[in-house]
Amino acid sequence: MQDVARAARVSQTAVSFVLNARADANIPQETRARIWAAVARLGYRPNAMARALRQGNSSLLGFVTDEIATTPFAGMIVRGAQDVAWQHRHILALVNTDHQSDLEQEAIGTLLQHQVGAIVLVAMAHKEVVVPPLLDGFPVVLVNAYSRDERVSAVLPDEVRGGHDAVAHLIAFGHRRIGVIDNLATSVAAPLRLQGHRQAMQEAGLEADPAWVVHVDGWQEAGFDGAMQLLHRPQRPTALFCLNDRAAMGAYAAAQSLGLRVPEDLSIIGFDNQEMISAHLRPMLTTMQLPHYEMGRWGVQALLSGKPLPGGRTLLPCPLVARHSVARPAD
Amino acid sequence: MQDVARAARVSQTAVSFVLNARADANIPQETRARIWAAVARLGYRPNAMARALRQGNSSLLGFVTDEIATTPFAGMIVRGAQDVAWQHRHILALVNTDHQSDLEQEAIGTLLQHQVGAIVLVAMAHKEVVVPPLLDGFPVVLVNAYSRDERVSAVLPDEVRGGHDAVAHLIAFGHRRIGVIDNLATSVAAPLRLQGHRQAMQEAGLEADPAWVVHVDGWQEAGFDGAMQLLHRPQRPTALFCLNDRAAMGAYAAAQSLGLRVPEDLSIIGFDNQEMISAHLRPMLTTMQLPHYEMGRWGVQALLSGKPLPGGRTLLPCPLVARHSVARPAD
Repeated sequence: MQDVARAARVSQTAVSFVLNARADANIPQETRARIWAAVARLGYRPNAMARALRQGNSSLLGFVTDEIATTPFAGMIVRGAQDVAWQHRHILALVNTDHQSDLEQEAIGTLLQHQVGAIVLVAMAHKEVVVPPLLDGFPVVLVNAYSRDERVSAVLPDEVRGGHDAVAHLIAFGHRRIGVIDNLATSVAAPLRLQGHRQAMQEAGLEADPAWVVHVDGWQEAGFDGAMQLLHRPQRPTALFCLNDRAAMGAYAAAQSLGLRVPEDLSIIGFDNQEMISAHLRPMLTTMQLPHYEMGRWGVQALLSGKPLPGGRTLLPCPLVARHSVARPAD
Repeated sequence: MQDVARAARVSQTAVSFVLNARADANIPQETRARIWAAVARLGYRPNAMARALRQGNSSLLGFVTDEIATTPFAGMIVRGAQDVAWQHRHILALVNTDHQSDLEQEAIGTLLQHQVGAIVLVAMAHKEVVVPPLLDGFPVVLVNAYSRDERVSAVLPDEVRGGHDAVAHLIAFGHRRIGVIDNLATSVAAPLRLQGHRQAMQEAGLEADPAWVVHVDGWQEAGFDGAMQLLHRPQRPTALFCLNDRAAMGAYAAAQSLGLRVPEDLSIIGFDNQEMISAHLRPMLTTMQLPHYEMGRWGVQALLSGKPLPGGRTLLPCPLVARHSVARPAD
């Protein structure tokens, strides 16, 4: 603890307060971050942490998310995790870090002091994360996230296969001119879903012309704009693959404004199965289900099964939810 | 423990397994329920529970919900609770009981054994609940729920005031013929929102004619049907108050199918501010915000503030979110 205090240029009392999560200590955010950085750098383990690491038989399971409120997806991951945890009579100890990495470190420290037996790190949008060094050697699973070095077990949606299956579904209905609306900008999911699109086109002997893929930035409005761009071409597409359901909602509005009926004049397929949208558009949207519930289950099951963690990435399928927005093309 | 075993007609070993949340004990659901019922009836406190009750200084906070995944509202309550909990450096220990009361009892028992310092009981839809006798004398707050005997502190949305303010907003714009679509069936929120409607009409010297209130059962489709009923009357309403945003979404579709423009020909106001809908309808929906985040905050703050719990019900406002679906009537 002396070493940590020296490295962080603070008093031992401050280190002790931070490591013991004293809320009343009133230590600035910046100082707390410096202390946790020193803890990580020096590989220091306070007693409670060391105990938790030795024991590993706690029935508390740390559940650290970067976000909790903006989409119903969060709820599905929590629910999947909770269902399996409770089968094993474990309780989830939940922390939402709101995308702040210094908060994440502090939260993880606090969870370790509560002697959680293992930790699930959850991202709400599929992405790359850095696992805090504090967790070296501790049982951890990443859900909807992966670390570059692949040392930590991760469970992820099979985005490539999902993109492939969406486009193969359109092709099976007889579509050849398929427009793609990519509204996901910097998401790691977008290039994977697009890779699936290219695979499906190539398998069917069709050209995956990049000119048929429009890139727009935003949600429903972006979907509307992207669809308008594609539908104003001389040879208009008979089907649209939208990289998420919110873009598909915008595409419905574009079709309507042009007097095109879905699916008679234009087939539309989405991605995510965001039910608040997909089940309530008219006609109901055909889309790909993201496996949030299943990833939550998988993560906790891997930690509590008693078997060694598998390591690397495990991909779970994104099954097709066939509703009413896809039909044979008219021409 | 002997008494519990006798009352529940099981062995002491079974009682011990259940109270200690042994996942591998393989005791049938029905038997576990009987044991917890006996525990509650006899007022028995296992050692760990007694310890937790004495200590009360744990930095774990039990968070028991009846549902977690179906609406983004769940996320907002969790987020509000978590934000305040973390300010106090407390961690939420989360259990989702999926509306099963025997599971709830067992979950609460397990939380007590984990020495949570207090418990928040959360309902996703505003409703009456029975607080398990196991929690007699333990620090508990109800969020979005209340118990009939009013002994337990509860925080709730001010539904009456919200209904009042929604209708008063329409009246302020000059509307006199206001239709109401109630699609909430057995919800406790519906009669309160309707009471607010009557208050606002009476304050403005208008008659709150029950014939202008249609009761339909369901979501978007019900909203569509209800709006069609009201809009086909000889004297059609110039504005609709929909008891939730999903009904409002259906009312938009009804207006469109009749060639009525929102808001020029028909003003529409919703309730809930379910943003996935309200912010993405065109025009964007004017609606009342449910205070889920604020209720989550309030609940945890009440438990961790160090002050005595206030008891009874605390009502939090449902503020108006004025977007673009309300305008002056044409006639």
